[in-house]
Amino acid sequence: MGVITFLSDYGLADEFVGVVHAVIARHAPDARVIDLAHGVPRHDVRSGALLLRDALPFAPPGVHLAVVDPDVGGRRRAVALRCEAEDRMLVGPDNGLLTPAAEHFGGVVEAVEISHSPWRLEPVSATFHGRDLFAPVAARLAAGAPFGEAGDPFDPAELAVLELPSARLEDGVLIAHALTADRFGNVLLDASAEQLGTLAHLGDMVDVAGRRARYARSFAEVGEGELLVYEDARRNLAVAINRGSAADELELPADAELRLRRAQA
Amino acid sequence: MGVITFLSDYGLADEFVGVVHAVIARHAPDARVIDLAHGVPRHDVRSGALLLRDALPFAPPGVHLAVVDPDVGGRRRAVALRCEAEDRMLVGPDNGLLTPAAEHFGGVVEAVEISHSPWRLEPVSATFHGRDLFAPVAARLAAGAPFGEAGDPFDPAELAVLELPSARLEDGVLIAHALTADRFGNVLLDASAEQLGTLAHLGDMVDVAGRRARYARSFAEVGEGELLVYEDARRNLAVAINRGSAADELELPADAELRLRRAQA
Amino acid sequence: MGVITFLSDYGLADEFVGVVHAVIARHAPDARVIDLAHGVPRHDVRSGALLLRDALPFAPPGVHLAVVDPDVGGRRRAVALRCEAEDRMLVGPDNGLLTPAAEHFGGVVEAVEISHSPWRLEPVSATFHGRDLFAPVAARLAAGAPFGEAGDPFDPAELAVLELPSARLEDGVLIAHALTADRFGNVLLDASAEQLGTLAHLGDMVDVAGRRARYARSFAEVGEGELLVYEDARRNLAVAINRGSAADELELPADAELRLRRAQA
Repeated sequence: MGVITFLSDYGLADEFVGVVHAVIARHAPDARVIDLAHGVPRHDVRSGALLLRDALPFAPPGVHLAVVDPDVGGRRRAVALRCEAEDRMLVGPDNGLLTPAAEHFGGVVEAVEISHSPWRLEPVSATFHGRDLFAPVAARLAAGAPFGEAGDPFDPAELAVLELPSARLEDGVLIAHALTADRFGNVLLDASAEQLGTLAHLGDMVDVAGRRARYARSFAEVGEGELLVYEDARRNLAVAINRGSAADELELPADAELRLRRAQA
Repeated sequence: MGVITFLSDYGLADEFVGVVHAVIARHAPDARVIDLAHGVPRHDVRSGALLLRDALPFAPPGVHLAVVDPDVGGRRRAVALRCEAEDRMLVGPDNGLLTPAAEHFGGVVEAVEISHSPWRLEPVSATFHGRDLFAPVAARLAAGAPFGEAGDPFDPAELAVLELPSARLEDGVLIAHALTADRFGNVLLDASAEQLGTLAHLGDMVDVAGRRARYARSFAEVGEGELLVYEDARRNLAVAINRGSAADELELPADAELRLRRAQA
Repeated sequence: MGVITFLSDYGLADEFVGVVHAVIARHAPDARVIDLAHGVPRHDVRSGALLLRDALPFAPPGVHLAVVDPDVGGRRRAVALRCEAEDRMLVGPDNGLLTPAAEHFGGVVEAVEISHSPWRLEPVSATFHGRDLFAPVAARLAAGAPFGEAGDPFDPAELAVLELPSARLEDGVLIAHALTADRFGNVLLDASAEQLGTLAHLGDMVDVAGRRARYARSFAEVGEGELLVYEDARRNLAVAINRGSAADELELPADAELRLRRAQA
């Protein structure tokens, strides 16, 4: 029995998610569908891509359907990707949404453009490719149809790349960047706890963007309104204010550089 | 394995949807349940009925459970309906919610009143017929129980009818009506793109309710604040304002008549 | 095929619920997972416990996963419990969330602490025990693994108890207490319709907390702004104001005592 995971920015107020499930059930009656999340901020490809990268390793191998697609109906490709590792396939728009997850699974070894897939639902609408393209392709793949028959092959090197900054260690300083903020205002960094661990221990004070923060295991370890640096549930380093919004208070635009170093006593 | 689709206005904040799933799992352990939508505006039978009619053709045949039920506990019938086409069964209140979908599937060939169904959960509560009546009946039918045993037969001609206006072409004018508005203020009409297509082509300007609109494929084709007429993802004609609310600006009550004609150059 | 029900206060805006489903699918590919509710007010253990107690009797036997866990990462136990009745197992934090449901199922006959379960996902995070502890344990149990291998046994008598008041009849007065309020301001009592039924009939006027209310079957039986006492869909006695908030107007803190008696004509 195939597994399909499904992530989108459709939200749950309308029928979009339900109709995609309906189409999948028609074409893959035995597939198990797992809703990863549908509350990705609308059109926020980067947030969706990072969520997908961090969540999929917990999911079984199978088909990973993802739709955050601000250019639906425009010129972006619609794609299915086969990864090096573990029989993982990704289906969605070619706008960078899928690539961080694909890299996690060893990179893309086979790519097909599915805009004219023989499995599409005709007529393909201008705006609901989740229903008309992505769902039937994901379903057929989960049901065991040959990957190459989903569409027209193209060179994976042509895939759209999601530009992401990259944290680095330099002279006892961790130079990190703000990737996104969640709805509580906690700012996700591109750095790992391992990187910060070369400079500081849990409980230490750390200078972050010119302010002082505690390197803590949880919010409970700092007072209300205080800044902390911590490893979040998705295992990325993040900056937060206990019961406040670090995004608002630190005013960090996407990709803003943050310099972290151990504070002087 | 039977399939059950489920639509309601229960929302997802409370346990109502979950408890209906629980009851179904007890009585149809092998059925696959697909949540079509639970964000139908509370008690809005017409919106639910149109959504059901437009979404169910994408779903596999099976049992279609739907609950938008402002008169629960009152005198309205609770019903199960068997349609002419494709082994489609509908379960829900007899208030018009099910009939547009039933018509799409060839009409109702067999109807039973299920308020005293032998499959009901006793005691039947005053307000939660989704749990006590509709879920066990839908589950048993999906598990293969004979339709006629669900309740007491009655003449399908007695079913409550949902009054819906009907667009028509007259002397080069498409006389349409506002059916409902979605939460973005886009106004759904009772007309199809095929009907408008006899008067205008994509890209043409169209007079709508005394104003000028573009007949467009997507919102991206008009400027901010401009009016457009387009075929929506559910394949109905709709009127919208790019980044605005057509419902608010045009002040169209339900069933308001809109006259569409090709604009003079 | 095992059944897992899942209740939490995670909400549906983020990926937490989806990731728990993903982990379950990895470890119990054939289990059926039923989302009971994820809109429990954040950290409100009592509301979660009452919902669980009232909803689970409608669900098939199996593993009941529940996570409302304000002390995650602190000293509270993480537990799996086996109940006397019907092959019911409960998995979640040991903070009282599980005990009212366990009592409904005949009490706990076997308890294990699972913080160091051999089935946990390493490294166990500080904040997301749903993913790292509870999901893999629930999944393995649903897949048929022996209960005793989930962790370290302890005496069920040591389980945290949820303090709940208890209604009683005294000299023609029903002395009840406010347990929680729902998001509409309807106040759930610890009393049953059977208890009130010894004092009054449906339709009677009842004195409640010094005010006059109708003992009604539904909101439709009283005017706007009027107080009513009724049996709610979960089959508890509740106090409400038609189109108003009883919680706001009566200012009842949790555990506040309400005296109900039949009103004098």
